Amino acid sequence: MITLASDFGSPYPAAMKGAILRQADAQLVDVAHDLPRQDVRAAAFWLREVLPEFPPAVHLAVVDPGVGTDRDVLAIEADGHVLVGPDNGLLLPAAREIATDDFQVYDVDYGHPRSTTFHGRDVFAPLAGEIHERGLALPGDDHRFTATDAFVDLTFPAPKRRGDEVHGEILVVDGFGNAITNVSGDVLDGRFGETVLVNGDATPVRRTYATVEPGQQLVTVGSHGNVELAVNRGRGDDAFGVTTGAAIRLTLD
Amino acid sequence: MITLASDFGSPYPAAMKGAILRQADAQLVDVAHDLPRQDVRAAAFWLREVLPEFPPAVHLAVVDPGVGTDRDVLAIEADGHVLVGPDNGLLLPAAREIATDDFQVYDVDYGHPRSTTFHGRDVFAPLAGEIHERGLALPGDDHRFTATDAFVDLTFPAPKRRGDEVHGEILVVDGFGNAITNVSGDVLDGRFGETVLVNGDATPVRRTYATVEPGQQLVTVGSHGNVELAVNRGRGDDAFGVTTGAAIRLTLD
Amino acid sequence: MITLASDFGSPYPAAMKGAILRQADAQLVDVAHDLPRQDVRAAAFWLREVLPEFPPAVHLAVVDPGVGTDRDVLAIEADGHVLVGPDNGLLLPAAREIATDDFQVYDVDYGHPRSTTFHGRDVFAPLAGEIHERGLALPGDDHRFTATDAFVDLTFPAPKRRGDEVHGEILVVDGFGNAITNVSGDVLDGRFGETVLVNGDATPVRRTYATVEPGQQLVTVGSHGNVELAVNRGRGDDAFGVTTGAAIRLTLD
Repeated sequence: MITLASDFGSPYPAAMKGAILRQADAQLVDVAHDLPRQDVRAAAFWLREVLPEFPPAVHLAVVDPGVGTDRDVLAIEADGHVLVGPDNGLLLPAAREIATDDFQVYDVDYGHPRSTTFHGRDVFAPLAGEIHERGLALPGDDHRFTATDAFVDLTFPAPKRRGDEVHGEILVVDGFGNAITNVSGDVLDGRFGETVLVNGDATPVRRTYATVEPGQQLVTVGSHGNVELAVNRGRGDDAFGVTTGAAIRLTLD
Repeated sequence: MITLASDFGSPYPAAMKGAILRQADAQLVDVAHDLPRQDVRAAAFWLREVLPEFPPAVHLAVVDPGVGTDRDVLAIEADGHVLVGPDNGLLLPAAREIATDDFQVYDVDYGHPRSTTFHGRDVFAPLAGEIHERGLALPGDDHRFTATDAFVDLTFPAPKRRGDEVHGEILVVDGFGNAITNVSGDVLDGRFGETVLVNGDATPVRRTYATVEPGQQLVTVGSHGNVELAVNRGRGDDAFGVTTGAAIRLTLD
Repeated sequence: MITLASDFGSPYPAAMKGAILRQADAQLVDVAHDLPRQDVRAAAFWLREVLPEFPPAVHLAVVDPGVGTDRDVLAIEADGHVLVGPDNGLLLPAAREIATDDFQVYDVDYGHPRSTTFHGRDVFAPLAGEIHERGLALPGDDHRFTATDAFVDLTFPAPKRRGDEVHGEILVVDGFGNAITNVSGDVLDGRFGETVLVNGDATPVRRTYATVEPGQQLVTVGSHGNVELAVNRGRGDDAFGVTTGAAIRLTLD
């Protein structure tokens, strides 16, 4: 099984699929090809959210503003999965979620690809296909793969607690308009059915959307476990006036 | 084979796919993940249109404004297919189309899922995977599955005939802008090549789009068998000034 | 393996998939269902770009403004691949790319399909499924398939060279906003790192996007091998003020 994720839109991902299928007899599963364009951090959030749901697989992920420069190419072994993508931090949160700290990063010598602008097709897809055909294993004796600790890491910013206030940030906005924060849902324990202040405004804390009236704002814990600003049958980002990267402040008492 | 349909956009459906593939060795086929958002009736129309085309399969469908409330979860056996989704009427038109009235609805006890906001991943996907692995059968002796007649049903409104006039409604607008009515195409029998009045305006009745000039309005019978308001190489909804739910009046003589 | 491409958007392609899977045990791979709507030339460009990446497969492609008229249906044998689609030129550039001139076009008698508006489901999908089940071969003795040279051909316009100037055209704009021309990238050989005039304005020639500042215009050679007008982390079509079909002029010295 090979999963594919990118910010390529359409139809470029199909060229990656063709390149994979020329060398691997694999089930292909699309994760998304509309990941936030060239926004490595937001894309990394989604990969961390989705990839751990899969059984062991090769996960090909390409959000790669540096394509064609000298940025490295990585393959990461993580608890039976192998993640393949550019060395810009994209893969690290997902690898850490899948395997805690028990993962191994390899730098891959990818030679001189056919194009300088489409490494998804010319570098990452063949590499994913090859690793799949080897049984989801990296070859110990292949000089193209070098174990390394010198990779670009990426972690999400931690929220700050100041007395009753939690200062956080919007990490991503999903397609429904739900604004997903970096604040762990734990801060809402014992507060469901009550209200908290969000940027100073009293907002109901609920376990799910449909417990408030259509159009009403709420704070909930999304499927990712983080605090989420939402509107029942509406867009939370618009109602709360936030977008990716916006600071938010929760007042808990 | 498991088909997937939802209004989740991207990338949430990938989490459902991962959850399925962890427990089922199944071919996955996306029906759509941009079903009309939280519009159960319009989504049910599309499922009725598409699912009967498939060979026997598990059909997972999630348009679920009531997620996390106490709404029930259904599995429906219909002529070798099994449909899985929320108890809000979504599945019924497709089940009826596949199996006429020879289908059986089961209420499924789904316990206490991991999240209150993403039953697609935490309830419906594992359920679909389990049913697939059982050979598309529901277990007769499993106390989680209870045959029931007390489900939320959904039928499409019937058009009304008054003399020469047929009073109908737009059920959905497709991505081309074709406005699909609830009026059976039979009313146009013998009228192809002629005109009818649509909301009072004479409009050509044709078997296909390209038989009128680009930009010209027409009335046709869509692939679903219903009367459709369209424009050759343009948007019927704009030209006729209609949207989902709009009343329409056909004058046939 | 059967690949699918269309301008159908969603959810109509799922009906094609169901119709295929009722008669073929095939891996399905989506190429794209948002091909430029009813723009046969632009869609043909993308098919030529993507289909040659695949191993031998049945390639089903439907961009078909003439559906339901008397336009013919084609199946093309090309170096182990079979392309299936309408006789409007859509398939020819891809067939020629896959097999140079060593391809054979067949006219297919498709009888009287169930609908006049959805041949994707009622004609092309069953045909693709049948050819797949025959082992990607057309039956020599089946009177429905007639070898023909009388098909609608389609070629892309050639650029014109006048002294230092190359006069070309934008063939398509991709989802990133990169404006892809009909000019072969060869004209830029030896000029990387320098500038050329694009419609009179000096523009850097680079091997990849990230070698100029974010927001800056550049000329590059895309993965398709053609000259492309682009902006690093921005939209080339907006910055250069071009759209599909626009004339462009490169001054090389």
